[in-house]
Amino acid sequence: MSLEIIPVEGLPMIKKGDDLPALIAACVDVRDGDILCVASSVYSKSKGHCRRLADITPTEKAAGIGEKCGEDPRFIQAILDETDDIILEYPFLLCQLPHGHVGVRAGVDNSNVDRGLIILLPPNPMGAAEDLRQGIKNVCGADVRVIVTDTCGRSFRRGQTGVAIGWSGMPAIQDYRGDTDLFGRVLEITEEAVVDEIAGIANFVMGESHRGVPAVVCRNFPEWEGHDELYFTPEEDITRRALKKMN
Amino acid sequence: MSLEIIPVEGLPMIKKGDDLPALIAACVDVRDGDILCVASSVYSKSKGHCRRLADITPTEKAAGIGEKCGEDPRFIQAILDETDDIILEYPFLLCQLPHGHVGVRAGVDNSNVDRGLIILLPPNPMGAAEDLRQGIKNVCGADVRVIVTDTCGRSFRRGQTGVAIGWSGMPAIQDYRGDTDLFGRVLEITEEAVVDEIAGIANFVMGESHRGVPAVVCRNFPEWEGHDELYFTPEEDITRRALKKMN
Repeated sequence: MSLEIIPVEGLPMIKKGDDLPALIAACVDVRDGDILCVASSVYSKSKGHCRRLADITPTEKAAGIGEKCGEDPRFIQAILDETDDIILEYPFLLCQLPHGHVGVRAGVDNSNVDRGLIILLPPNPMGAAEDLRQGIKNVCGADVRVIVTDTCGRSFRRGQTGVAIGWSGMPAIQDYRGDTDLFGRVLEITEEAVVDEIAGIANFVMGESHRGVPAVVCRNFPEWEGHDELYFTPEEDITRRALKKMN
Repeated sequence: MSLEIIPVEGLPMIKKGDDLPALIAACVDVRDGDILCVASSVYSKSKGHCRRLADITPTEKAAGIGEKCGEDPRFIQAILDETDDIILEYPFLLCQLPHGHVGVRAGVDNSNVDRGLIILLPPNPMGAAEDLRQGIKNVCGADVRVIVTDTCGRSFRRGQTGVAIGWSGMPAIQDYRGDTDLFGRVLEITEEAVVDEIAGIANFVMGESHRGVPAVVCRNFPEWEGHDELYFTPEEDITRRALKKMN
């Protein structure tokens, strides 16, 4: 059976207080089992997870990093306020957020928003996914799965791809441990980050947010078993250790 | 318009000398504009890009790394023979291949193959994609685009995802440079690694290769403009520099 990916077209520009699930359900006929992917930026806009640069007073640390990176120190301060651990300061500010996600500038974004405003990632992305899932259920009764996406760079490879920062109704990782290959041997690759693979194709369909398609419905996608340990701990992540030594 | 992703089911176990495009075209009705994603492992099998461990004599270097990593030194030697630059030796062998891809064990794989054999990545993955594209054209006349996929780990996040190592009929990176956001400002995120996003969802549909679905057809996917500079140069890749210092 083939899988279907449906762009949610016709959404208005999202603003604080909008009922995002209701707006999505008005644009697309969501069904039980669908995976609804939503860009974190529109969720944050609907909830008002934004800040006004004019309201931010940068600390000395933010001023120093801002000077090094050529960025507005108020913007840097907003990033530091979201950050649990700075992994790299220069040539770009790479941050771990409290929920585990590692992103350039802590995912703080100054595009597709009124001038002088910046958008933060949802402070609780897992809660955001659960909230969207419940919202869809309330508005049309459909029992969907939800992925909240962000856009990130990678090591070794140029260009951004979509990744999952929150999910509900499915495990993040499909776990093949104990499965055998076509010749009966136990598989060496045992964990597949399926929420990131799905977030990636959703991001492809969304395009950059200037296209105005911040949500995508994935239909006929199977279920899988696994776990939610999507983020390496600092101890097991050698890239993180190596980058921290560069500071 | 929705996008469709079709698993290519019913392929036999691929062996050296098989006409992979003909076998694929016999299982699925490919059409002009489709993106055919093929796991590098089955392409390599069809072309005999495999080695017999018994035929390999490890060098002293391979023996040393093998001891450190707890791996068969002949397997390590096969990896070194594929490698242009070792980025990390321990706790896992991370290698850059001549064509630019960076992968654990240089993508050399010992699953889903006869015991004692190992599968190498196609030595020229771009040529492999072009070869598959021409092969499909010859066998059924369809003008498809092709992505050859591999499965890789990432920094910061647990689990493997599919990535593109070869592509034909499309640029790797969609380039938004010069585009403006919904508020008319020039976008900061300008490059999207779309071949990797598509390879990722293809990998999701393939599952691990033990499911026997090593090819996937993506239909109704748009075209895009961009470039093929998917791999960072060593100079611009800070993760690579940081990891090399760990050796």
